[in-house]
Amino acid sequence: MKKILILGSTGSIGKQTLEVIRQNKKHFQVAGLVCKNNIFLLKEQIKEFQPSYVGAYDNKINLNDKKIKCFFGEEEILKLIKLIDCDIVVVAISGAAGLRPAFTAIESNKNVALATKEVMVLAGELIKKELKKRPKVKLFPIDSEHSAIWQSLRAGNKEEVEKIILTCSGGPFLGKKIKDLETVNLKQALNHPNWKMGSKITIDSATLMNKGLELIEARWLFNIPVEKIEIIVHPQSILHSAVQFTDGSIIGQFGLPDMKVPIQYALSYPKRLKNNLSRFSFTELKSLTFKKPDLKTFNCLKLAYDAIKIGGTMPTVLNAADEAAVELFLKEKIKFLDIPEIIFQAMQKHKTIKNPGLSEILLVDKLTRKMIYENYK
Amino acid sequence: MKKILILGSTGSIGKQTLEVIRQNKKHFQVAGLVCKNNIFLLKEQIKEFQPSYVGAYDNKINLNDKKIKCFFGEEEILKLIKLIDCDIVVVAISGAAGLRPAFTAIESNKNVALATKEVMVLAGELIKKELKKRPKVKLFPIDSEHSAIWQSLRAGNKEEVEKIILTCSGGPFLGKKIKDLETVNLKQALNHPNWKMGSKITIDSATLMNKGLELIEARWLFNIPVEKIEIIVHPQSILHSAVQFTDGSIIGQFGLPDMKVPIQYALSYPKRLKNNLSRFSFTELKSLTFKKPDLKTFNCLKLAYDAIKIGGTMPTVLNAADEAAVELFLKEKIKFLDIPEIIFQAMQKHKTIKNPGLSEILLVDKLTRKMIYENYK
Repeated sequence: MKKILILGSTGSIGKQTLEVIRQNKKHFQVAGLVCKNNIFLLKEQIKEFQPSYVGAYDNKINLNDKKIKCFFGEEEILKLIKLIDCDIVVVAISGAAGLRPAFTAIESNKNVALATKEVMVLAGELIKKELKKRPKVKLFPIDSEHSAIWQSLRAGNKEEVEKIILTCSGGPFLGKKIKDLETVNLKQALNHPNWKMGSKITIDSATLMNKGLELIEARWLFNIPVEKIEIIVHPQSILHSAVQFTDGSIIGQFGLPDMKVPIQYALSYPKRLKNNLSRFSFTELKSLTFKKPDLKTFNCLKLAYDAIKIGGTMPTVLNAADEAAVELFLKEKIKFLDIPEIIFQAMQKHKTIKNPGLSEILLVDKLTRKMIYENYK
Repeated sequence: MKKILILGSTGSIGKQTLEVIRQNKKHFQVAGLVCKNNIFLLKEQIKEFQPSYVGAYDNKINLNDKKIKCFFGEEEILKLIKLIDCDIVVVAISGAAGLRPAFTAIESNKNVALATKEVMVLAGELIKKELKKRPKVKLFPIDSEHSAIWQSLRAGNKEEVEKIILTCSGGPFLGKKIKDLETVNLKQALNHPNWKMGSKITIDSATLMNKGLELIEARWLFNIPVEKIEIIVHPQSILHSAVQFTDGSIIGQFGLPDMKVPIQYALSYPKRLKNNLSRFSFTELKSLTFKKPDLKTFNCLKLAYDAIKIGGTMPTVLNAADEAAVELFLKEKIKFLDIPEIIFQAMQKHKTIKNPGLSEILLVDKLTRKMIYENYK
């Protein structure tokens, strides 16, 4: 029986994690639940899963049950992470806000199942250093692409990896050119062809920034230079990613686009558990297609390459500027093509700090957002 | 340094095995070479690779070098297999003739890299029993599909396998109907779209019997009932096969159609070795397609399903009748559609022996061929 703490339990990944646990009660038990502000849903989850520790970032939780310990606000939630007895911390908090909780979980010797790719984008190097000090602590990716890579890597040794092939659906605007993107609206950008996800990641999928962040995440998770990561557009989202080994063999993982598969794998690893999720059928789909990404039109992906090549705090700026820009786009304060422009400008202005510590990363993150929000008040 | 004995060194797989060894002289050394009758090529191979043991089935070998031990005929070659000091015996003899050598290699505690699928078709159950008695002896598949499955299986445990997905190019007559096959000639049948192989297996690929034999081979190699093996037609021969696990994840192996990849993997396992073979590019090919096999038109595949379901000596009859029929077709004594008809008739006449021993299998094999050849004298 594995005890699970879910950070972000009322979000898209959090709810799907609870669905996986609901289907596998013999294997998993909810130790704790933390949300941002959806107390109504959190209380329902508490009722069903009976955790001992609960927390919320933005609201106080009032419960009648005194056996359940309640935490409120970021600092208390970090305490909760330290105190709780659990086997895996699922970090499914949207954006850079996931960094401190993930770091705290690792520092308190807890395995992390990571859905928040921004953690590795901002502090991949730091996290890897921290993990090196704690060989018993494991980091399990939840992102479908990184789960696919992680699974495929089992077919060889680390030193036998030649390259990673990261697949990308292309998003709702695949095949479009800059001119077409000038007029797209929020509704169109939120209409992802394959995946139902939170709004931030859905917009990132439309700009291809999501793939840029995944590129940086893969670079750190699998300790591989970006030059050895090939991004290919695969509109059906069935091949979730692959690994090419030094003998020329490519091993890849397929499945219907359903986050419950990688979530379950991260929780059950090293075992696989039986489930009744729909299966992919090659002969029903008939065709899988692939093409190169269009970096000219989808400039965010190019900016991500630039950021990771520069390194230091530049990926933090890339991510913070993206989070701020996407928020502005979701509020319909800016146009779709303003997103890469805002990120580009922020990167232009930034003076990179090499080998930053956690506090420097968090400061750069904060200042970048502040600067952008001030421009659009 | 692994010492390799190659049975069938002048055939298609044998020559490619030597090419792999030629490129990896630090890792592999030729301990012995055995051919059927191509003494001219064998002598060239002896000169280059300097084995200590050599043999030929149909011709005596005369060498000036007295350090090299020469063997002639089946019984002596079985002796060679027992005597030789080697790590892996590559069994790449076409057809049922591979059975006794493979069995002898296992009995004398040598690992077998198996290209001759007929060994498992005829005596899969017996071979598995023999291997169970000898836990240190390993059987490595060389067939590209079975190598793909073997590699994919690394991503999970045995009890986590839900099904095996065996891919099939469809051969040169993909999409054709019975009426179209009535008039096809030898040249057309030998024109495989993706793979350059020996003539027997190329005809088997045109009738889809090759996939039928592979189905039976997979059944025994991976100890999985045929109901859990799905055959899908994939004309590009890039996805070489896949495994679906109980969590819904499908892990598959891709690559250009080049037997040197699975040969090298069988020799280097559990390691992978770097090579300079051409790499597959998803974005160059652009599309992978899949469809269900047409069992009505390609009746051989249906006969293979029938044979393995009946079990006992029935797969031996299937294979012997196929070998005889293909030989007759290669000599242009029968038409393409006579091949399934001859096999069907032989299976109809056969009274299955359950749990046969090696001698019974070999006798059924011999009698089945004899009966067919007599009909076409």
